[in-house]
Amino acid sequence: MTQLKNDLLIRALLRQPVDRTPVWMMRQAGRYLPEYRAVREQAGSFMNLCTNPELACEVTLQPLRRFRFDAAILFSDILTIPDAMGLGLYFTEGEGPKFKHPIQSVSDIKKLPIPDPNTELRYVTDAVKLIRQHLNGSVPLIGFSGSPWTLATYMIEGGSSKNFQKAKSLMYEQPNYLHSLLDKLAQSVAAYLNAQIEAGAQAIMLFDTWGGMLTTEDYCEFSLQYAKQVKALLANTGKDGNTVPAILFTKGGGQWLEAMLDAGYDALGLDWQTDIHKARLQVGSRVALQGNMDPVALYAQPEFIVEKVKAILEKFGKGSGHVFNLGHGILPDINPRHVEAMVNAVHQYSPVYHR
Amino acid sequence: MTQLKNDLLIRALLRQPVDRTPVWMMRQAGRYLPEYRAVREQAGSFMNLCTNPELACEVTLQPLRRFRFDAAILFSDILTIPDAMGLGLYFTEGEGPKFKHPIQSVSDIKKLPIPDPNTELRYVTDAVKLIRQHLNGSVPLIGFSGSPWTLATYMIEGGSSKNFQKAKSLMYEQPNYLHSLLDKLAQSVAAYLNAQIEAGAQAIMLFDTWGGMLTTEDYCEFSLQYAKQVKALLANTGKDGNTVPAILFTKGGGQWLEAMLDAGYDALGLDWQTDIHKARLQVGSRVALQGNMDPVALYAQPEFIVEKVKAILEKFGKGSGHVFNLGHGILPDINPRHVEAMVNAVHQYSPVYHR
Repeated sequence: MTQLKNDLLIRALLRQPVDRTPVWMMRQAGRYLPEYRAVREQAGSFMNLCTNPELACEVTLQPLRRFRFDAAILFSDILTIPDAMGLGLYFTEGEGPKFKHPIQSVSDIKKLPIPDPNTELRYVTDAVKLIRQHLNGSVPLIGFSGSPWTLATYMIEGGSSKNFQKAKSLMYEQPNYLHSLLDKLAQSVAAYLNAQIEAGAQAIMLFDTWGGMLTTEDYCEFSLQYAKQVKALLANTGKDGNTVPAILFTKGGGQWLEAMLDAGYDALGLDWQTDIHKARLQVGSRVALQGNMDPVALYAQPEFIVEKVKAILEKFGKGSGHVFNLGHGILPDINPRHVEAMVNAVHQYSPVYHR
Repeated sequence: MTQLKNDLLIRALLRQPVDRTPVWMMRQAGRYLPEYRAVREQAGSFMNLCTNPELACEVTLQPLRRFRFDAAILFSDILTIPDAMGLGLYFTEGEGPKFKHPIQSVSDIKKLPIPDPNTELRYVTDAVKLIRQHLNGSVPLIGFSGSPWTLATYMIEGGSSKNFQKAKSLMYEQPNYLHSLLDKLAQSVAAYLNAQIEAGAQAIMLFDTWGGMLTTEDYCEFSLQYAKQVKALLANTGKDGNTVPAILFTKGGGQWLEAMLDAGYDALGLDWQTDIHKARLQVGSRVALQGNMDPVALYAQPEFIVEKVKAILEKFGKGSGHVFNLGHGILPDINPRHVEAMVNAVHQYSPVYHR
C-alpha cells in the first residue's frame, strides 16, 4: 500500500482540510506540449498511442515533469469502450473519432457485448499499473470514462455530431431501445472504471461531454440516470485501501447541479459558464467542485491569467472542496508557459483560503 | 393606423390575456422550404436576397402561406450592421458569413462609423415597409438585430468562430477597447431597430447567439450590459401608436435569467436546454417567455412532435405570457409537414391553458 506524498486532490474531492487548492487540467497530456507531439509522431497513429501502455504512460507523465500539477490523469480516449464492443474506432486527421460499424438498428444494440475490461481493454489497465509504478506515490492517478449517454451519441451517429439527429430520433421514437443501450453502457462503464480502480486509479471522472445538448427532462432520463447507475456500481475503495472519489462533469450542465447531486458523486465538474460562487451556494457541503477557468483565457498574457486564477479562487472562497481546473480541455495551441502561470498562481494565491 | 387582425403575439409578449398560445419559429423563412430555395436560387447569392426588398418580402411571407403562424419575422441577416460599417460581409457556400475587412487593431475600432439606418440599411427598412403592406394587418411583423456582443465576435474573428480566441483576447487584455466597440454597436443596433420600428416593425428581437460562450461575469459586463443599453434607447411605440414589445434571446443563457430581467425586455427567449416551468417560476410575472422545443425534435414523426408540444404547453401552464417557438432556429433539412404538426398542435392544445 503506497502512501501518497501529495494527497491534496483526494482530500479536496472528499472536502477534507487541505493547506492549498489542488490543481490539474483536463487534457493536460496533450498536443500543446511539444514532447507529446513527438511521442504521438513516434506512435504513428492516435490509436497506437492509446493502446500502447508504455507510450500512454510516457505522455501521462509528461505534464507532471513541467508543471506542479497535483494529479496525473490516464492518457486514453473516451471511446475505448465502444471500440472494445466491436464498433471499430478510428481517427482521421482533423475530423475527430469515427466508427467503422456504428449502431444502425435495434438488433445492433441487442448484439452488443459488455466488454471484459481485463481482456479487450487490457491495454488500459496495463497503462494504469505502469503509470502508478512510475508515479511512485508522488500524486494520485485519475482514471476516467465517457458517460453512457456521451458514448451512445458517438455509437449511434458514427462519430462526432453537431445536432445528434440520429441519437435524438431514437430517443424520441424508440426510447426503450435507447434505454437498453444506455443500460448496457452503464454496466460496461462501471466494469471498466472498476478495472481501472483495481489496477490502481485513485480517483475517477465521468466525462458527460454531450449531456448539455439535451432538454432538462431528457438529461435526467437519458444521461444523469445512467451516470447514477455507474456510480452505484463503482468500488468505493482502491487497491491501496483508500477511498476513491468520483467526479461527474456534464459540459453545459450548470443549470442541473441540483439534480446532479442525487447521482452520488463526490464532486461535480463545472464548465466556465457556470459561476462557481453561486454553484457552491447551491451545492453547499454536499459535493466538492472542480473547475472552472475558461480554456480560452490561457491565450491571454500571463499577468491576465494570474488575475483570472485569483478571481476564481476568491469566488470559491474559504475552505476545502475546490479542485482548480479549466472549464473544458486545454486547447491544442496554448503556450505551455501560460499553463505554468496558471499552475503557479494556484500554488501562490490559494493557501490564504485554507488558513 | 392598421388594426391587427391577429394580435396574439403582441398580447402574449405583454402578458395580456389571450385565448390561445401564439406560435412562430426562429428561421421560419428559410431553407427547409422549397419555395425559399427557389427564390434564393433566383437571387443568385444570399446577400442579393437580403438586400433586395421585394425578394426579402417574398421569403418573409412564404411560411405564412403554409402554416398558421402568429407572426412574420423580417428576412434578413444578423450581420447587416457590420456590413454597413464597411466590413464587407460575404458568404461562401457551406462556410458561413465572413468579412473582407475584419477588425484587426484598435484604430480599426476608432474609425468605425455608426451607420445611418435610413441610408446604408435602407434596403432593410424598405423591406419592412413592403412586408407590412403585404401583411395588411393579418399578423404582426417582428424586426430584429444581432446583439452588440454577437456582432462584435464576428467583426473581430472575421467570421464564425469556435472558441472566440481573438474576441476574448481583446476582452482579457484590452477591455476598454472592446467596451468602446460594444458601445458603438449598441448605438448602431438601437438606431437600426428604431428605424425598423419606424418603418413598421411591431415587435423586436435581439439575437445574442454567442453570449452563452462567456463566463457569468463576462456575460454581464460584455453582453447583457449592451443589450440593456440597446433596450434603453428603443422606441416603445410603433408607427401605429401601439406598444412594441422587445424580446432578448441569449442562446446558452438559461443560468442567467435572473440577471437578464434587469435589462428591461418584455420577454426572454429560452433555448431548449432550459426548463420552461422552472424559468417561469423564476421570472414570475416580470417578463413573458418564448420557446422552447428542441429543433431536433422536428425530425421525429408527427405523433411524437405533438407530444413534445403538449409537454411544453403543460410545463408553462395556465395563463398568458408564453410564445411558442423552437429553442433555436429550424434546421435546414426538416420536413415542412413536421412543422405543420407542431403549429397545429399549438392551435389545438393551447386554448385550455387560457380559459
